[in-house]
Amino acid sequence: MAAQDPLVVGVDFGTLSARAVVVRVRDGAELGSAVFDYPHAVVDQALPGSDKPLPPDWALQVPADYITSLSQAVPEALRAAQAQPEDVIGIATDFTACTMVPTTSTGTPLCELAEFADEPHAYVKLWKHHSAQPQADRINELARVRGEKWLPRYGGLISSEWEFAKGLQILEEAPHVYTAMQHFVEAADWIIWQLTGNYVRNACTAGYKGIYQDGEYPSPDFLRELNPDFDRFVTHKLDHPLGQLGAKAGELTAQAAQWTGLPQGIAVAVGNVDAHVTAPAARAVEPGQMVAIMGTSTCHVMNAAELVEVPGMCGVVDGGIVPGLWGYEAGQSGVGDIFAWFVRTCVPPEYHEQAQAKGLTVHEYLTELAAAQGIGEHGLLALDWHNGNRSVLVDHELAGLIIGQTLATRPEESYRALLEATAFGTRMIIDTFIDSGIPVRELIVAGGLIKNDLLMQIYADVTNLPLSVIGSQQGPALGSAIHAAVAAGAYPDIREAAAAMGSASSADYQPIEANVELYQELFDEYQTLHDYFGRGVNDVMRRLRERRRVQKGQS
Amino acid sequence: MAAQDPLVVGVDFGTLSARAVVVRVRDGAELGSAVFDYPHAVVDQALPGSDKPLPPDWALQVPADYITSLSQAVPEALRAAQAQPEDVIGIATDFTACTMVPTTSTGTPLCELAEFADEPHAYVKLWKHHSAQPQADRINELARVRGEKWLPRYGGLISSEWEFAKGLQILEEAPHVYTAMQHFVEAADWIIWQLTGNYVRNACTAGYKGIYQDGEYPSPDFLRELNPDFDRFVTHKLDHPLGQLGAKAGELTAQAAQWTGLPQGIAVAVGNVDAHVTAPAARAVEPGQMVAIMGTSTCHVMNAAELVEVPGMCGVVDGGIVPGLWGYEAGQSGVGDIFAWFVRTCVPPEYHEQAQAKGLTVHEYLTELAAAQGIGEHGLLALDWHNGNRSVLVDHELAGLIIGQTLATRPEESYRALLEATAFGTRMIIDTFIDSGIPVRELIVAGGLIKNDLLMQIYADVTNLPLSVIGSQQGPALGSAIHAAVAAGAYPDIREAAAAMGSASSADYQPIEANVELYQELFDEYQTLHDYFGRGVNDVMRRLRERRRVQKGQS
Repeated sequence: MAAQDPLVVGVDFGTLSARAVVVRVRDGAELGSAVFDYPHAVVDQALPGSDKPLPPDWALQVPADYITSLSQAVPEALRAAQAQPEDVIGIATDFTACTMVPTTSTGTPLCELAEFADEPHAYVKLWKHHSAQPQADRINELARVRGEKWLPRYGGLISSEWEFAKGLQILEEAPHVYTAMQHFVEAADWIIWQLTGNYVRNACTAGYKGIYQDGEYPSPDFLRELNPDFDRFVTHKLDHPLGQLGAKAGELTAQAAQWTGLPQGIAVAVGNVDAHVTAPAARAVEPGQMVAIMGTSTCHVMNAAELVEVPGMCGVVDGGIVPGLWGYEAGQSGVGDIFAWFVRTCVPPEYHEQAQAKGLTVHEYLTELAAAQGIGEHGLLALDWHNGNRSVLVDHELAGLIIGQTLATRPEESYRALLEATAFGTRMIIDTFIDSGIPVRELIVAGGLIKNDLLMQIYADVTNLPLSVIGSQQGPALGSAIHAAVAAGAYPDIREAAAAMGSASSADYQPIEANVELYQELFDEYQTLHDYFGRGVNDVMRRLRERRRVQKGQS
Repeated sequence: MAAQDPLVVGVDFGTLSARAVVVRVRDGAELGSAVFDYPHAVVDQALPGSDKPLPPDWALQVPADYITSLSQAVPEALRAAQAQPEDVIGIATDFTACTMVPTTSTGTPLCELAEFADEPHAYVKLWKHHSAQPQADRINELARVRGEKWLPRYGGLISSEWEFAKGLQILEEAPHVYTAMQHFVEAADWIIWQLTGNYVRNACTAGYKGIYQDGEYPSPDFLRELNPDFDRFVTHKLDHPLGQLGAKAGELTAQAAQWTGLPQGIAVAVGNVDAHVTAPAARAVEPGQMVAIMGTSTCHVMNAAELVEVPGMCGVVDGGIVPGLWGYEAGQSGVGDIFAWFVRTCVPPEYHEQAQAKGLTVHEYLTELAAAQGIGEHGLLALDWHNGNRSVLVDHELAGLIIGQTLATRPEESYRALLEATAFGTRMIIDTFIDSGIPVRELIVAGGLIKNDLLMQIYADVTNLPLSVIGSQQGPALGSAIHAAVAAGAYPDIREAAAAMGSASSADYQPIEANVELYQELFDEYQTLHDYFGRGVNDVMRRLRERRRVQKGQS
């Protein structure tokens, strides 16, 4: 019996928890949601049940947590929505990326085999597992030397977070695990495999994280030169038929129906990524609409009809966001993280006390004080490189800078300078797109930082673009639900589904002309320092970091 | 009856209090001391008994406080020393400078006349009265245009704190006070006038603050061009016979004997300045011995046989420290003030709590943590310009900078970077002396910061000079006592008195070779940024400050 007013379910698998949302297909109304925290969270100290410490920069997960999440969050969201399960016509998910599961030929995670339970390399390597940096460095160096034509598609830098670096690390540090691994699967696809019984590799992560460009992966020649035993990594571990975003990957199995309480046989969409799935949720899938997902870091995604190699991008992928368009991704490696660092380590006791007395967080209190300042009144300028610079400089050796502090400088002034610095960083990215021939006409913001009015207005003023914030509190899960509706055939494509179900208020923040002019002056100053410290005029930041490593005995 | 074991008294008039010390002439032993806080402290809000607010940047004092201090601190110091007043053979004082008293022809401060009691310009203008900046700017501009040959003696900049700017401000803002003012007297000399009945102008402030060079003040022509009514400022208000440092200005009057409890008729030395009087107290009056008085700011004084115009000095004066040598003065406008700003506004609650739990000040706690770091381990570099830069750039528009902060940067790391930045600032001054042909062989440190072992070792390592700290807790007052002994004829000159009575331990801190090398690398980086931001390559600091003024409506 076809549902009268059909529903879909979207599930967003984040770093620490999964969130399910039940959405009405007709208008995108979010009827109910639920969150479930992964029992093992991030495994970065020792494996479960072990006290043997993991090396630095490791970050693993336990795949059973994902299944438990499905069986907890989906039924709870259905209850919260007071929904009849039989009204649900499809489900879709999004995942952190690049998060990788080493599996057997049937998709069983190696860590679930008794022989590998004590082997760290058999577990899920979470996106922020950063210990494959030496492998990433070699990949980049070799690609540069060989002039691999895929390298510019990633702004000249393959991340240690991505598939090849993580795979090569397993080969070199745990060859027996590498041998046993029949598939090296994006968690985004592994979860769909569990839901449908089908392994379908999604076009998004294949492109952004798997270096799949123009129908090819890096060549066996290239892989052999990295390590003779790595030559068949693509053919033996990675390659698999691709699915386009919004396509149906399969139907919900009896087993998965039991986990979720949803009807067996409903449509399950191809896997997807948290950032990219947010674009349709924000109703921003047209060329010129840049979506910025602003949290601890910022991820920028945008569609364009043309392929251009924009300097310093994270990646450009055919159909990477919606089929038929080139999906561009860029990023700022520190945003909310910088504000959190400031609040944690640079704010004196009386500010904490006063915030508490006013019933505000320290962030809110500082923002309130910062909002009372005129532009440039603090006399400060900062570079937002406390966690390095992804776009457009692609240099993780860079570091923060603040200039102009005096004996009268107050914490709220430095705080505002850091807010502004991240806006200047976004402006650099936008200008680079425009200079490369990709227009940017509008900024749509999602993520945890949208609550900060001051920050949003600063971004509108600095970029001189109308800025909308996503209307949903759960952008990625809503984005997944939209993909579920398309996979279920309720809409012909993601664009139409996004138009009906997406949730962005339009132009909440308009640039204020006087502010735009003032910020243009400050941005010119930012750009001068950006180029001076970031483009090789004075490499002092790199040298300070090298000196630091030497002193800490890490070099 | 001549004393068996004669004593002298030194009195140090500081910004907030006066300190008297009773010293044995034979060996400089400090037998007793006492401090008295000025009842009116610094008058920067409103005149006593008034609620009419003073304009910004005003800083006045009440001269009666100085007399009260004499009558309280000197007798108390004598009691503390268990001294017989009749054993005291001389008294000398030192004062903040440039601190100016407008008086009648007999030395009565104008503010003590009923008609001027409500007139701010009739009060003492304390050294840090900064509202004569417009006048100072005009003095500098005109001197530059006219090529006045005294300008290079002051590093190209006459301060708003000095005699001419303050005098011109009175003329232009309160002409009736200017007319009534028969003498515009350094407080250093006014207090001697009160003790002896003689007005003797000391060679030190006449040179450093009064632009007295090569036997001349700025010409009437110059003064007329500043303001037609200012043409006779020197002849009518300022000029007066000079006394050399250590010379006898006169003998203690009956009135002053009553205030102090000292014998009438004992020798009173020519007035002097707190920083300069510290050199003999630290037994550092030979060429090559640089004395750094390190407190909220740092004042560097040093003697040399030659006259050289060292770029960016505060002043060079014939006999400015001891008669017969050229006295050089340089300065860093922010040192302890920067550390205090950091502790006040940049340190989170848990550091305050942990310091308290350990019974330490936050400064001590941060220093303890910072001392555990290797050189360069923090990955940071700072410019110490939070209060502008006096020497060698002479630019009060400059501001602070810190570079290299990451999400892992801890407060003790930034704190250490600031300590080091001030040492680099001192190194710039020393290098500039050496490059100008004035050798610097040794660093002798006085002032409140000598307690910080880590800081002292950093200064030794950064400057690659042996560093001694003054042995006395009350350097200026001891320095005054030494001048009293010379004025009383107990020693033939300041050098011999300093050798017998001064108090510096020798080379407490030796540069450590490995540290010197590491700091040389960091200093090279500092110098690059110093020149980039400070010498006109990128004037962003000036522009930020200008923008700040515009926004605050001060432009």
